[in-house]
Amino acid sequence: MTDSPQPSDWRSESASLLATRYGLESWPDAEVVSSPTIDLQLRHRSVRKFTAEPVTDAELTSIVAAAQSASQSSNLQIWSIVAVRDAERKRRISEAIGGRSYVEDAAVFLIWVADFHRAAKLVETQDIEATTVGYMESTLVAFADSGITAQNALLAAESLGLGGVFVGSIRNNPAEVVAELGLPEFTFPVFGLAIGHPDPTEQAGTKPRLPQAAVLHHEQYDAEAWEQPVSDYENHLAEYYAEFDKPNYSWARTIVRRLGSAAGLHGRDRMRDRLREQGYDSE
Amino acid sequence: MTDSPQPSDWRSESASLLATRYGLESWPDAEVVSSPTIDLQLRHRSVRKFTAEPVTDAELTSIVAAAQSASQSSNLQIWSIVAVRDAERKRRISEAIGGRSYVEDAAVFLIWVADFHRAAKLVETQDIEATTVGYMESTLVAFADSGITAQNALLAAESLGLGGVFVGSIRNNPAEVVAELGLPEFTFPVFGLAIGHPDPTEQAGTKPRLPQAAVLHHEQYDAEAWEQPVSDYENHLAEYYAEFDKPNYSWARTIVRRLGSAAGLHGRDRMRDRLREQGYDSE
Repeated sequence: MTDSPQPSDWRSESASLLATRYGLESWPDAEVVSSPTIDLQLRHRSVRKFTAEPVTDAELTSIVAAAQSASQSSNLQIWSIVAVRDAERKRRISEAIGGRSYVEDAAVFLIWVADFHRAAKLVETQDIEATTVGYMESTLVAFADSGITAQNALLAAESLGLGGVFVGSIRNNPAEVVAELGLPEFTFPVFGLAIGHPDPTEQAGTKPRLPQAAVLHHEQYDAEAWEQPVSDYENHLAEYYAEFDKPNYSWARTIVRRLGSAAGLHGRDRMRDRLREQGYDSE
Repeated sequence: MTDSPQPSDWRSESASLLATRYGLESWPDAEVVSSPTIDLQLRHRSVRKFTAEPVTDAELTSIVAAAQSASQSSNLQIWSIVAVRDAERKRRISEAIGGRSYVEDAAVFLIWVADFHRAAKLVETQDIEATTVGYMESTLVAFADSGITAQNALLAAESLGLGGVFVGSIRNNPAEVVAELGLPEFTFPVFGLAIGHPDPTEQAGTKPRLPQAAVLHHEQYDAEAWEQPVSDYENHLAEYYAEFDKPNYSWARTIVRRLGSAAGLHGRDRMRDRLREQGYDSE
């Protein structure tokens, strides 16, 4: 199941990609294992500026097949995609969620939909009611499986030289997105994926992540493990943003803004009501 | 950002992988685009039987780096991993969730944790309360981002010749998993990922998925689109399971069992209470 063999210099290239991912000058570990797929993953960045070149039907077919190839909870397949290419529809969606140029400029805007509609209709053909759609578990598993499958789609697109960005802000105004896409009962917009050909003039790099020591625990969760790595991370991220003319960036400030008040949710503070309106009681 | 160049026969190989993924004899489209990464994704199957060979620290480092390289909602990084290698701990977790040999036999069992603990503690250092953790949006985004990042991890493992399976059944008994891993407030076990070297004697193949016509909508959601594809799918899946000595498999029956009664949730019908106990009020 391995992918293609690596070129001879892959170890040093992979070590360099690892270092960049964590905002380090060089990678401290002597042993590095990687693969072309891992190298592609390490090189990921969100693309928010696109050229006008279209995404072909054949490309979209392979991207969707990649998404469907990912694991599915109990093979339920409780998600769908609405692919929007129409310029006016992309513009209206962008407007509804606060204005996102990458939604308007993407060759195709893929909206992931938590989808128990298909399964519920199938159950109804047997004269049985789909009672468990209203449980919290159903909402959660649809969101988790949407994440699993969409990541395969984005990586597939990247492997073809395309780029993209997740658009969580469709949850800023789910009611409008539901109306625009004609989403029936038991469907809910999870996030969008704006896909297109990367505009080479975009100013962006590999955003550093938290040191592994903050994220990876062994055997049991270590509730104090975050402190030193998060402090180091503030520095790595500040250095990264300084390169893009944002000299005073602070990760802590970003986190405070999101966690400290409902205003930081940009309309997502009533998500539970919006879910209920679509039949996801989440009880 | 493309991955390595394809061998000269890649089109026919990719077309064959696409056909197999949908339970078809051959792929009907003349034009196929693919890449080594997409081919790897198309070949995915869940691995539930492992050899005793360990997963090295260097492999785990690259797998975790791949996970962290995926997109993160607003760069919040609101998930963690607890890596369990201890045989007794794996056995206890397996027992708590109903007995799963692949949890016990995996070289490493990675539990994905929805984790606002780190962020909340950081906010508290500024004398601000992390009030929005209790919103539904926070629960949802932690589950979606867990899916996004874990899929990168599993694909990275597969690219190294390892295999694995998602273990949603850790949600059958979250309280026990919380206790076993010592999970603090604002953390919640989302799913596990059992990783190891595939045992070549395992009987399993590429499970067919729903035809794209059931999953991919254009411009707007088509509420009737599922009917014919789902009917075709029953046949493809029945043929697949017949090869593995399950002659009377029905996808519809699987769906009815999961959607028709709370018994099909195997303890996950109280997920909302379990989340609340960990500080995820999900309001």
